[in-house]
Amino acid sequence: MGIAIRKLDSTDAGFRQKLSSVLAFEAGEDEAIDRAAAGILADVKARGDAAVLEYTNRFDRLSATAVSALEIGQDELKKALDGLPAARRAALQTAADRVRAYHERQKKECGSDGFLYTEADGTVLGQKVTPLDRVGIYVPGGKAAYPSSVLMNAIPAKVAGVQEVIMVVPTPDGVKNELVLAAAAIAGVDRVFTIGGAQAVGALAYGTDTIPQVDKIVGPGNAYVAAAKRRVFGTVGIDMIAGPSEILVICDGSTDPDWIAMDLFSQAEHDELAQSILLCPDADYIARVEASINKQLDAMPRKDVIRTSLTDRGALVKVRDMDEACEIANAIAAEHLEISAEQPQQWADKIRHAGAMFLGRFSSEALGDYCAGPNHVLPTSRTARFSSPLGVYDFQKRSSIIQVSEAGAQTLGKVAAELAYGEGLQAHARSAELRLK
Amino acid sequence: MGIAIRKLDSTDAGFRQKLSSVLAFEAGEDEAIDRAAAGILADVKARGDAAVLEYTNRFDRLSATAVSALEIGQDELKKALDGLPAARRAALQTAADRVRAYHERQKKECGSDGFLYTEADGTVLGQKVTPLDRVGIYVPGGKAAYPSSVLMNAIPAKVAGVQEVIMVVPTPDGVKNELVLAAAAIAGVDRVFTIGGAQAVGALAYGTDTIPQVDKIVGPGNAYVAAAKRRVFGTVGIDMIAGPSEILVICDGSTDPDWIAMDLFSQAEHDELAQSILLCPDADYIARVEASINKQLDAMPRKDVIRTSLTDRGALVKVRDMDEACEIANAIAAEHLEISAEQPQQWADKIRHAGAMFLGRFSSEALGDYCAGPNHVLPTSRTARFSSPLGVYDFQKRSSIIQVSEAGAQTLGKVAAELAYGEGLQAHARSAELRLK
Repeated sequence: MGIAIRKLDSTDAGFRQKLSSVLAFEAGEDEAIDRAAAGILADVKARGDAAVLEYTNRFDRLSATAVSALEIGQDELKKALDGLPAARRAALQTAADRVRAYHERQKKECGSDGFLYTEADGTVLGQKVTPLDRVGIYVPGGKAAYPSSVLMNAIPAKVAGVQEVIMVVPTPDGVKNELVLAAAAIAGVDRVFTIGGAQAVGALAYGTDTIPQVDKIVGPGNAYVAAAKRRVFGTVGIDMIAGPSEILVICDGSTDPDWIAMDLFSQAEHDELAQSILLCPDADYIARVEASINKQLDAMPRKDVIRTSLTDRGALVKVRDMDEACEIANAIAAEHLEISAEQPQQWADKIRHAGAMFLGRFSSEALGDYCAGPNHVLPTSRTARFSSPLGVYDFQKRSSIIQVSEAGAQTLGKVAAELAYGEGLQAHARSAELRLK
Repeated sequence: MGIAIRKLDSTDAGFRQKLSSVLAFEAGEDEAIDRAAAGILADVKARGDAAVLEYTNRFDRLSATAVSALEIGQDELKKALDGLPAARRAALQTAADRVRAYHERQKKECGSDGFLYTEADGTVLGQKVTPLDRVGIYVPGGKAAYPSSVLMNAIPAKVAGVQEVIMVVPTPDGVKNELVLAAAAIAGVDRVFTIGGAQAVGALAYGTDTIPQVDKIVGPGNAYVAAAKRRVFGTVGIDMIAGPSEILVICDGSTDPDWIAMDLFSQAEHDELAQSILLCPDADYIARVEASINKQLDAMPRKDVIRTSLTDRGALVKVRDMDEACEIANAIAAEHLEISAEQPQQWADKIRHAGAMFLGRFSSEALGDYCAGPNHVLPTSRTARFSSPLGVYDFQKRSSIIQVSEAGAQTLGKVAAELAYGEGLQAHARSAELRLK
């Protein structure tokens, strides 16, 4: 049975409207979930460990007698790593090494040293950059437990210089994911607690006797976790609340259609809401990709998810030319953008909005998901218009430095006083004027 | 009548607990305000200009017949600038020039050029940095309308390369603030609409026929504006929701006590919830600052606000020594930290968490508020633990670049496939394997 994947043509009347409706995604906020999360947070804030223990035993069907019993020691992490088959361990280590190397480069290049400069009158201005003290990483239990996500969240934090990385991961019925624990060992996670849900978010945000308060919480979770993260934002930092994953492929028609079809699958297999879109100026090529989709689908273990995702949210779009493809890509601002074309750089130069760009036909998104080096935590749902991949900079913050010389205080003081009086803030003005000779 | 300002000593039993209670601030979230803001947003999203016009006419007591009539043209901004007294215009221009110079330096130093590097097998990795396309700046009307905030929000956006900066500012009863309009002219704001409240946030977030959709909304507002910004986060970017302003002064006892007293006033005069705290190892000096507070208060036009703020939320804290002062300052993570001391750098080196550091006795916070150059939009309520001053980086975002060579796809493909199979994502694995020779 073929997939009824939507086909659009940019020259059709109403094309932009049709494309908008394909892209439309409303993260349904469930008031009941939000209230439940708020209740759990308030309880954890008030009762600390006792509340965390109760919720964990109830929701994950455990019978722990203390939160301290929910901690996994470094020896157990190490054992999980040592227990992996050699090929898998080597792959995990290679991925970690490459992710670390990229983020070390990023740290060096993204202004982590801060700056200072001295003006003619001796006034010094600048910016100091410091790592966060302590970060919490939420790792989902169950089907969405991805060791690659442990690497992608923990390594940038450690590269940034975060002193303590605390991972929380629920273990329903006490089942631990050995690959996740092994990834924690490789990434250098400092402490691991087997707690999850809104209670884990609350414990990290407020701290308990056993679980230290962190400064920021990152990592994906279910609707309760997302609701809890939104609510603790301000008490701690949080990363973006991720929407469904997306891939946008711009292809000039020169790549093996089987490759492109599989790239679209690789996004679609994540979940039914994932989105895979192809932009191509060549109608014949689009037909070949469609044929390949139908040819390859049956061999996919996750074919039901892929079929639903491609049918409900996928699209094959015929565009006028590659320039128009780039323009549409900027409007879509996709999480993952593959430019599968000869001389991809010429098109990449026209792209203003994308989470990550995969250039050339050998750059399949899957390589970026695991081991190319750049982060796989990327802005979804058009948020690449204003936000960035998770990076070292998310685990650092800046402080302005202002050291005004006596001479500087004379000139700046008069300017500040003039403006302060204009705003009706006389103490500001006097504070500046007292420093005048 | 003296101010009953709280005095603490770090050697007292229960000191940390007392300090915590002084610092405690809960931004009371008002459910009624949140619901009202949500209703207005939904209405603006559904009805666009018609809703914006109705709310603006109702809340600001206007009788405009179209949203286009609420736009202020560049000629009117220019006229406001030309109409300023010469000294005020010069001060505004100096402030703008210095803010621009600092942020241009910041742009150069904070990794705005991105980076690219090539690995041995020809694989290219990197990061592209691009400005946001369009940004909205919210400027409050009424008593909190500060031209300095227009400069501090708009100039970093323009330095970052934002193509269009759209300012919204409510004008209750049609009263315009000439200094705010003049600041918009100097800062290079592209368009100005006299709208405010949740309706302005909705118009910027969703776009209407008259008001373009923006990618990020920055700037302070009242509780309705804050609630609306929280709700549109995700559709657009937002800056931090600011709490009450704070100053923490560490003084070694060598600064004129009148200066320090006035610095504490300059924060306290903002509003009754503002917080001013002094840390000092010298009890006699603290007594002299207290005497100066009482001596200088009566001459302050905003003495009632200052008195309430210092009484309710201020503190004079005797510490053991300057090292302990730095340690306490890290726990407080203040928005503004003055280190009023000989050789302040030695203490600044120990500070990990602060929005802005003012070093040396001539660096009064007021200079930073107006014209030193660094931004005066800073993290409040201990959020300096994980966030930064507003900066050029808030108006830029990054895209990862991954261009894998054919050789690179051979080695990376095997690693990615191994891990993808481990995570049960077979299409990911196949997508990598198809590129293997």
